[in-house]
Amino acid sequence: MTTINELGARAKKSAAALALLSTGEKNKALLAIADALEREAPAVLEANARDIADAEKNGMTGAMVDRLRLTTARIADIAVAVRYVAGLADPVGRVLDGSLRPNGLSITKVSVPLGVVGVIFESRPNVTADCAALCLKAGSACILRGGKEAIRSNTALVQVMRAAAGANGVPADAILLVEDTARETAAAMMCLNEYIDVLIPRGGAGLISAVVKNATVPVIETGTGNCHLYVDASADLEMAAAIGDNGKTTRPSVCNALETVLVHQSAAGAFLPLLKERLDRTGVELRGCARTKKILGDTVRDAAEEDWYTEYSDYILAVKVVDSIDEAIAHIARYGTHHSDAIVTRDLQNSRRFTKEVDSAAVYVNASTRFTDGGEFGLGAEIGISTQKLHARGPMGLAELVSYKYIVAGDGQIR
Amino acid sequence: MTTINELGARAKKSAAALALLSTGEKNKALLAIADALEREAPAVLEANARDIADAEKNGMTGAMVDRLRLTTARIADIAVAVRYVAGLADPVGRVLDGSLRPNGLSITKVSVPLGVVGVIFESRPNVTADCAALCLKAGSACILRGGKEAIRSNTALVQVMRAAAGANGVPADAILLVEDTARETAAAMMCLNEYIDVLIPRGGAGLISAVVKNATVPVIETGTGNCHLYVDASADLEMAAAIGDNGKTTRPSVCNALETVLVHQSAAGAFLPLLKERLDRTGVELRGCARTKKILGDTVRDAAEEDWYTEYSDYILAVKVVDSIDEAIAHIARYGTHHSDAIVTRDLQNSRRFTKEVDSAAVYVNASTRFTDGGEFGLGAEIGISTQKLHARGPMGLAELVSYKYIVAGDGQIR
Repeated sequence: MTTINELGARAKKSAAALALLSTGEKNKALLAIADALEREAPAVLEANARDIADAEKNGMTGAMVDRLRLTTARIADIAVAVRYVAGLADPVGRVLDGSLRPNGLSITKVSVPLGVVGVIFESRPNVTADCAALCLKAGSACILRGGKEAIRSNTALVQVMRAAAGANGVPADAILLVEDTARETAAAMMCLNEYIDVLIPRGGAGLISAVVKNATVPVIETGTGNCHLYVDASADLEMAAAIGDNGKTTRPSVCNALETVLVHQSAAGAFLPLLKERLDRTGVELRGCARTKKILGDTVRDAAEEDWYTEYSDYILAVKVVDSIDEAIAHIARYGTHHSDAIVTRDLQNSRRFTKEVDSAAVYVNASTRFTDGGEFGLGAEIGISTQKLHARGPMGLAELVSYKYIVAGDGQIR
Repeated sequence: MTTINELGARAKKSAAALALLSTGEKNKALLAIADALEREAPAVLEANARDIADAEKNGMTGAMVDRLRLTTARIADIAVAVRYVAGLADPVGRVLDGSLRPNGLSITKVSVPLGVVGVIFESRPNVTADCAALCLKAGSACILRGGKEAIRSNTALVQVMRAAAGANGVPADAILLVEDTARETAAAMMCLNEYIDVLIPRGGAGLISAVVKNATVPVIETGTGNCHLYVDASADLEMAAAIGDNGKTTRPSVCNALETVLVHQSAAGAFLPLLKERLDRTGVELRGCARTKKILGDTVRDAAEEDWYTEYSDYILAVKVVDSIDEAIAHIARYGTHHSDAIVTRDLQNSRRFTKEVDSAAVYVNASTRFTDGGEFGLGAEIGISTQKLHARGPMGLAELVSYKYIVAGDGQIR
């Protein structure tokens, strides 16, 4: 089996070639990859069926098996996504800034590929194709390390993509899969500073914290979202209830889903029953503070201190009545994960305070946190949602998947 | 003594207040800090004298003692630098991008402070004031950890700055010094993810690699520069010799100094004697390949494989004759550190190839690598020169010392 060092060396070599490809050459390969994924779907589905059979034998839950499963329709969706990436603007070679210095030097700041991007992710095989397509478009080689459960599916997908790339003027080694799913190999990958420029973990909190803790390669932390909605005293309560319901119930497993509702004491009595009525339709479990229970009754469970910290990723919502916007902002600072937080208000000053003082990647006024997404933000496809402050924050599209260099031209200037 | 955790908590608390200060409030504090540094110079000099006495007693070399030494003139220079930072544009609150989405959401991408910046550096006490001033202007709190040898000087400087900040509406805890110089404390600081948003090491290769290896906090790697000059076949040889001399001899200890000259075989016979004549004036030692020795004679030492990797930071230069621009580019890719590399040429196509294919933070055509500097690039003061590709590359000024957030405003939009 290929060692992780060999993979690194091959990725670095292919990255140098990738960086010099024209937009047209990259797009041609992406379109060929999309076509090949559809054409070779039977082989991919066959590999996936074996992963599914093993997963079921090993007692994987139905929801997890569903995430792992590919179908002809899902492969068609993957191909559509790859074609969409081909249609996006090339993030490489943009002139970002520049100046003519007093000494006559001309300085141009130009976007360039990152080089080699490592992605460590869990069992959804569509991530494999998404990440490979985005990295290729951004002129970087990728080393993909997926979950053990999806190894056959990922191997089949990567094989198809590599062949299509190789047949269309792009090095096959632009897309590399870590076939050895041993933990030690992932650990070695996290410290492959010689070859990997950036590491992006995509998955649950456990995976992400393991990468942050163990990696020496620069990491972009993604995904954990303990998102809040604060319903201000002056809020339109129907709007607030709709936003609360939307944030919690449309897709509870994603990172921009709502986990805690804070409501101003003067609005709580009218608002909480409105919210509960909506949430009851999907059977959301509420965990509330004492004042919440006083309004909604004892069907609401007691919220423990731990609840304020928890990203449920489920049909559970924590609810707290607060005395003021100050208390709401302080609560979010203390318990939040700086992902996405919203206020519903009619008060201009409070909306300004909230957007200024809440230190999150995306701060919303009168809209659902569910919009934190590359597509919704108009960034095109996204490779993840950064929850750190370095390099990129919030949805990361192609523009965040590049670095830059300075080109300095002179006529013999010395210092 | 205050623990590193306590320092972290205090820094984080002050960062929340700092983020809300106006430009005027920050500038007022910076000017007060500059005045206080000059006014309190005697106390700082007294503390510095005790550091110097210890350093001399411990046998520190003259050059190192000189780096550690403060004088009235040097403190005046530090005050000038702080006033200069006060005069720079505020990097916080800039609208970086924005759009009105089809669903009516307005999205604004705004620059915000990083939060808490940790800086780990070696013995030059001027770094203390520089970093504190830049972080304050960028709205971030800083936790400074300087060298053991400079602890009294740093303590005195930080005390003066904290008092001036505190008396002028800025939390004194915006500027914090790690007074405990034990290695374990530095190690704990590198893993203070709860409180520190970014860690910037400034110093030698040993310090930087220790931070990269041990930190779990996101790091911006700075400083190591194995810089190259490639003299093309068509080069103006007098220009090339002047640029080679400038790159090597004006300040050999800095990271943008030249370490290796590569020269095209067809230019080597005429160029190398010209270069040597200039370098002999400052006694630069040459280490050359066999072809270099054939031209310059046996006074040139043999270059070993290791020389191509070495950042001498001294009056030593490695010299190699290459067959082609391809060999030059491949040499730089193999041995370089992606900091600053230059070509001297009259050939347009070769200049384009070099700037496109050499993967360095700054790539020069017909100019000295010594220009890689925040001031020379027009970025204002710099906090370091990044040699990584994430977040910032090359000189990092105030604009690189911030993050951003998305502010999303709507009228009740749900997804």
